Amino acid sequence: MNRMEVTEKIITVKVAKGIQWADVAKKVGLSKEWVTSACLGQMTLDDKQARIVGKIFGLTVEEQKWLQVVPYKGSLATAVPTDPLIYRWYEIVSVYGTTIKELIHEEFGDGIMSAIDFSMDIVRQPDPKGDRVNVVLSGKFLPYKQY
Amino acid sequence: MNRMEVTEKIITVKVAKGIQWADVAKKVGLSKEWVTSACLGQMTLDDKQARIVGKIFGLTVEEQKWLQVVPYKGSLATAVPTDPLIYRWYEIVSVYGTTIKELIHEEFGDGIMSAIDFSMDIVRQPDPKGDRVNVVLSGKFLPYKQY
Amino acid sequence: MNRMEVTEKIITVKVAKGIQWADVAKKVGLSKEWVTSACLGQMTLDDKQARIVGKIFGLTVEEQKWLQVVPYKGSLATAVPTDPLIYRWYEIVSVYGTTIKELIHEEFGDGIMSAIDFSMDIVRQPDPKGDRVNVVLSGKFLPYKQY
Amino acid sequence: MNRMEVTEKIITVKVAKGIQWADVAKKVGLSKEWVTSACLGQMTLDDKQARIVGKIFGLTVEEQKWLQVVPYKGSLATAVPTDPLIYRWYEIVSVYGTTIKELIHEEFGDGIMSAIDFSMDIVRQPDPKGDRVNVVLSGKFLPYKQY
Amino acid sequence: MNRMEVTEKIITVKVAKGIQWADVAKKVGLSKEWVTSACLGQMTLDDKQARIVGKIFGLTVEEQKWLQVVPYKGSLATAVPTDPLIYRWYEIVSVYGTTIKELIHEEFGDGIMSAIDFSMDIVRQPDPKGDRVNVVLSGKFLPYKQY
Amino acid sequence: MNRMEVTEKIITVKVAKGIQWADVAKKVGLSKEWVTSACLGQMTLDDKQARIVGKIFGLTVEEQKWLQVVPYKGSLATAVPTDPLIYRWYEIVSVYGTTIKELIHEEFGDGIMSAIDFSMDIVRQPDPKGDRVNVVLSGKFLPYKQY
Amino acid sequence: MNRMEVTEKIITVKVAKGIQWADVAKKVGLSKEWVTSACLGQMTLDDKQARIVGKIFGLTVEEQKWLQVVPYKGSLATAVPTDPLIYRWYEIVSVYGTTIKELIHEEFGDGIMSAIDFSMDIVRQPDPKGDRVNVVLSGKFLPYKQY
Amino acid sequence: MNRMEVTEKIITVKVAKGIQWADVAKKVGLSKEWVTSACLGQMTLDDKQARIVGKIFGLTVEEQKWLQVVPYKGSLATAVPTDPLIYRWYEIVSVYGTTIKELIHEEFGDGIMSAIDFSMDIVRQPDPKGDRVNVVLSGKFLPYKQY
Amino acid sequence: MNRMEVTEKIITVKVAKGIQWADVAKKVGLSKEWVTSACLGQMTLDDKQARIVGKIFGLTVEEQKWLQVVPYKGSLATAVPTDPLIYRWYEIVSVYGTTIKELIHEEFGDGIMSAIDFSMDIVRQPDPKGDRVNVVLSGKFLPYKQY
Amino acid sequence: MNRMEVTEKIITVKVAKGIQWADVAKKVGLSKEWVTSACLGQMTLDDKQARIVGKIFGLTVEEQKWLQVVPYKGSLATAVPTDPLIYRWYEIVSVYGTTIKELIHEEFGDGIMSAIDFSMDIVRQPDPKGDRVNVVLSGKFLPYKQY
Repeated sequence: MNRMEVTEKIITVKVAKGIQWADVAKKVGLSKEWVTSACLGQMTLDDKQARIVGKIFGLTVEEQKWLQVVPYKGSLATAVPTDPLIYRWYEIVSVYGTTIKELIHEEFGDGIMSAIDFSMDIVRQPDPKGDRVNVVLSGKFLPYKQY
Repeated sequence: MNRMEVTEKIITVKVAKGIQWADVAKKVGLSKEWVTSACLGQMTLDDKQARIVGKIFGLTVEEQKWLQVVPYKGSLATAVPTDPLIYRWYEIVSVYGTTIKELIHEEFGDGIMSAIDFSMDIVRQPDPKGDRVNVVLSGKFLPYKQY
Repeated sequence: MNRMEVTEKIITVKVAKGIQWADVAKKVGLSKEWVTSACLGQMTLDDKQARIVGKIFGLTVEEQKWLQVVPYKGSLATAVPTDPLIYRWYEIVSVYGTTIKELIHEEFGDGIMSAIDFSMDIVRQPDPKGDRVNVVLSGKFLPYKQY
Repeated sequence: MNRMEVTEKIITVKVAKGIQWADVAKKVGLSKEWVTSACLGQMTLDDKQARIVGKIFGLTVEEQKWLQVVPYKGSLATAVPTDPLIYRWYEIVSVYGTTIKELIHEEFGDGIMSAIDFSMDIVRQPDPKGDRVNVVLSGKFLPYKQY
Repeated sequence: MNRMEVTEKIITVKVAKGIQWADVAKKVGLSKEWVTSACLGQMTLDDKQARIVGKIFGLTVEEQKWLQVVPYKGSLATAVPTDPLIYRWYEIVSVYGTTIKELIHEEFGDGIMSAIDFSMDIVRQPDPKGDRVNVVLSGKFLPYKQY
Repeated sequence: MNRMEVTEKIITVKVAKGIQWADVAKKVGLSKEWVTSACLGQMTLDDKQARIVGKIFGLTVEEQKWLQVVPYKGSLATAVPTDPLIYRWYEIVSVYGTTIKELIHEEFGDGIMSAIDFSMDIVRQPDPKGDRVNVVLSGKFLPYKQY
Repeated sequence: MNRMEVTEKIITVKVAKGIQWADVAKKVGLSKEWVTSACLGQMTLDDKQARIVGKIFGLTVEEQKWLQVVPYKGSLATAVPTDPLIYRWYEIVSVYGTTIKELIHEEFGDGIMSAIDFSMDIVRQPDPKGDRVNVVLSGKFLPYKQY
Repeated sequence: MNRMEVTEKIITVKVAKGIQWADVAKKVGLSKEWVTSACLGQMTLDDKQARIVGKIFGLTVEEQKWLQVVPYKGSLATAVPTDPLIYRWYEIVSVYGTTIKELIHEEFGDGIMSAIDFSMDIVRQPDPKGDRVNVVLSGKFLPYKQY
Repeated sequence: MNRMEVTEKIITVKVAKGIQWADVAKKVGLSKEWVTSACLGQMTLDDKQARIVGKIFGLTVEEQKWLQVVPYKGSLATAVPTDPLIYRWYEIVSVYGTTIKELIHEEFGDGIMSAIDFSMDIVRQPDPKGDRVNVVLSGKFLPYKQY
Repeated sequence: MNRMEVTEKIITVKVAKGIQWADVAKKVGLSKEWVTSACLGQMTLDDKQARIVGKIFGLTVEEQKWLQVVPYKGSLATAVPTDPLIYRWYEIVSVYGTTIKELIHEEFGDGIMSAIDFSMDIVRQPDPKGDRVNVVLSGKFLPYKQY
């Protein structure tokens, strides 16, 4: 058994039962972004969280244990994603990558925006010309250390 | 002559004169994100904007014309970016890609978040545990058309 | 279970029973292009459409549910397709890519032709020198937003 | 000297003088699609066409000769194009590739749609919800030969 | 079931029974080159041919139907083939590619040698210094269309 | 100086003076296939041949010496060629690769068709339905050695 | 069934029974290098050799037949091998590749060292500073043919 | 200035003056394999060796200094070499890679054959059926350390 | 059966029983770094070590034999690892690669730091600003041999 | 002008004058690892440091300004480095990658070892069996944030 099989089981059960990620998140008591990524095999749950998720998706004790093992991360099958929704995010990195780099360095100096001490919030923003997806990314700035 | 040469000239002048992107943006009258990406060869300026940018960076009339030509976009030298700051963004797409896809579809159905009818806002969020980079991405949701 | 297995089942049944895509499309009440791509795992059906397709191909209730889940899109096994028919399309993008870009920008300015608000129509055009494949692609022009 | 240098000169002159592809095509007397792709180094002009193009862009006699040499074709710098407008076309091939294959084979049997005996027509289609890019692709069907 | 499984069954039976491609071709009544490539999943048989091949290799009715479905073509596992015999052919394309291009264009002008309206004949040419493999490739010349 | 610069000079002179490969071959006294590939930087000329080629293209003594140095071979810019004419040859290897392998092994046993003890002849074959390109490839069969 | 499955069975039996390649080679009556590569699916055995190998590894008659079929060669999972021992050989080709080319051409002129009419001998060379692996590679020189 | 420019100068002078690697090696007093690879930018010369090489090829003092700087090694332009002579060596690694691994491990246990404490000797072996290239590779066996 | 299956079994048992690598290492009597890499299929155990590991993870005799076979090494699924923790190490090689090269050569001359005669020690270093991971890498310097 | 040109000038001057990185580091007052990587275009100097480095290498004021601009990082020309010394480090990541991941997670839980809040120390460790390269890597552990 491995983590990927647990992820596939979770997705299969989700489709069969029509479970919503937002509901799973509420039961776990954390954001829908973190909980969904954990269910998709990218984050590590603690014992209590694993039991809650296990109950929702009917996981065995061993499967719940896998949810508590740090997974090998990276959710894409190819370096450049083929799915149009995910590709648009890759395109933002491609088109705006050097811009983001310039502006963060102009404000903070040399360093990075952490993808570990990081959170994300995805919300619908109503708009008469067509609703928008609003995403807030928040990452701690980590300066390069001189030594 | 090509757009890349104009971009390189802009960057060279920026370093030599110590120009700030935020100041360029103020003079152009648009956000620092859009203006910086335009100066880096990813967006298209109109005649008036090109004159303002041309004045700041000492561009010739022909170089200003290049700023008004739609560029071949994509700012990265490799499909997976090597620069640590930009890589963290690629990593976010890699680790959270399927999560973003699940949550946007759960909220909006099949479609994408536009990277064209799109804006980005990068700000410093003071934090006693270390200031954070906060980025708001806003893209129009575009539903897949049935036909 | 996953969407790919449902796609494979649909194709297997199609070959075994000699079903035509045009007939499937008529029963669904949409174009053959959209319906075929949906059956091949690239579009999302609603409940009623899934039932119709499910009946044609003998799908279980759970398989019909998978047809209503937004799939991870992209139908090619390699970045450059090896199949000669599909490669010719890739070649058109390769040979005419910059031409298409120049002409759309000359007519519309900076922006893209949408692949989401998009339709396609493939028809036979009789010709004494050999019949032709005529394809009409229609995509909404989306201008880049300044902000 | 090589064809690529001639292409670059044509583009440089086009930007400097503000020449339109549609006007070049009219003077050559062929479609804007074919003429633009020829100017961009993808097609071969005959002697008379080369003189007309040479006059418009101020080309030397030797540069005009290069326009009459069959070029090494393919206009993209990477197998997967990074430019958003061109990428959308790649995405259409990726998402609809197997659909196009199925429908052409259902109508014509085994064979391909030619990318050589081929024409393309790009037009603006006014639409109250936002104008559309309409593209007609026409390629001769070539059946696989049994032998 | 899919075409690849039928191909694998054909090869397995061929090895187990010691069938020769030349004999299969004789029974089908076409060249050994076309028939072998069809059995290897690259060409499409008609109903009668499929029955003959089906009888030779003990295929079921459904497997025979798969032989009549246009396959997704391309027989190599990697873009650059690793097998020494096939690599030599890739090397010929690599070393002589620009030569072939120059000489066909010198004789015919701009266009291609078709790989669809195409035939191939592989024969042994006795030679006292060591027998040779002689291969005749014949492809219709297709001129690029001006429009 | 390097061989590639000599190749570029040859091509530049060829275009400027309208030289034909067939004429160069006649003066050298060998096939047009070998002579063209040598001029394109893939084969090695002897002293006498280099002088003849040098005279035709106006090469210096040092440039003639480069023609006598064994070049680093391989004439394509990418592993999968983008030029449509050369791609068709790659496609033949891709679609027919396993067929060629099967038939040569069936006739000769384990070994390869040499790409070194090799010749190629490209001729026009008149045909009322459209002239054809006929290519004869002849390579010595080299059996694998047991030891 | 396919050759790869036979190779895997041979390796599994070898580990389970602790068979040595040198012993297999002695029984076959050829070098350990050739026999090992044949058992690993890279060379073709004749009927008698296949029976000997079949007896050692307990292969069925059909599995022995597969040993007599010319395999699709190439034993590495990636173009650049990850295994340290095999990588060192790749590194020798990478670091010394142009050196080997220069020296063989200096001695023999244009041509190659055959990898088909080829043998290899791997022996231990005792050395007080640490024993060495000595490998003798012997390949027939094949001159490029002029034609 | 960089090492690559020095390498190019050495090669240019070698062609112009018709220098032989074997003669350079004799003057340096080391094997032709090591000296050639050093001249091609893969090894590091000491001060005395650099002066000898510098004299032969007419290098400046600064160029001689570059010969004494450890170069960034790897002499191939692509991961899979396109030149036929070098490719045959890559093919040996590809076809025999797992065989070499098995036999070295059978004789020595876990470890590698060093490519650093390594030497190579390339000689002509006369043979009535065609002379052969004989290459002896000698590398110290380095066992994996347990710790 | 193959080594990868044994590795997967070890990991499955580890998760199910909550075994710690540090405990396994203590029982084997070697460092946690070496023992973990051996259990993950990268190193070779001797008979006694295999029995100890076999007992801990409930392996069969045949599975224990596989632990004593030198594995095909390399633990990553892609050339550039996607997992954030492992990527940081790749990034260190990418960002500091030329620095490491310069400093080792400045101290030792031309040669390498061995990855075979090598050890690694990973420890927690308490730090009031956040604990640190301290890793000591120790590799024998191997000078390039002149010959 | 760009940072890469400044890096190349620094290296050229270093070779011409025989400057040692250790001496540069002493004058800057930081570790040789950080200072070397900064001179090689991977770190950002402050004004004072840039003046010191500028004096050592004879840089202009503008070149010194470039040293204070955050560079686009990543020092390798290919994803898998070809240089043997740097490759050994890549190999350590490849062979030990999953081991490092397991042991850091066992000690710290889910998170990463920072490559930003990071330092490296390379020293010679005398050893009678051959001196060793000892490298200490120290990176802050960053736990994944739940939200």
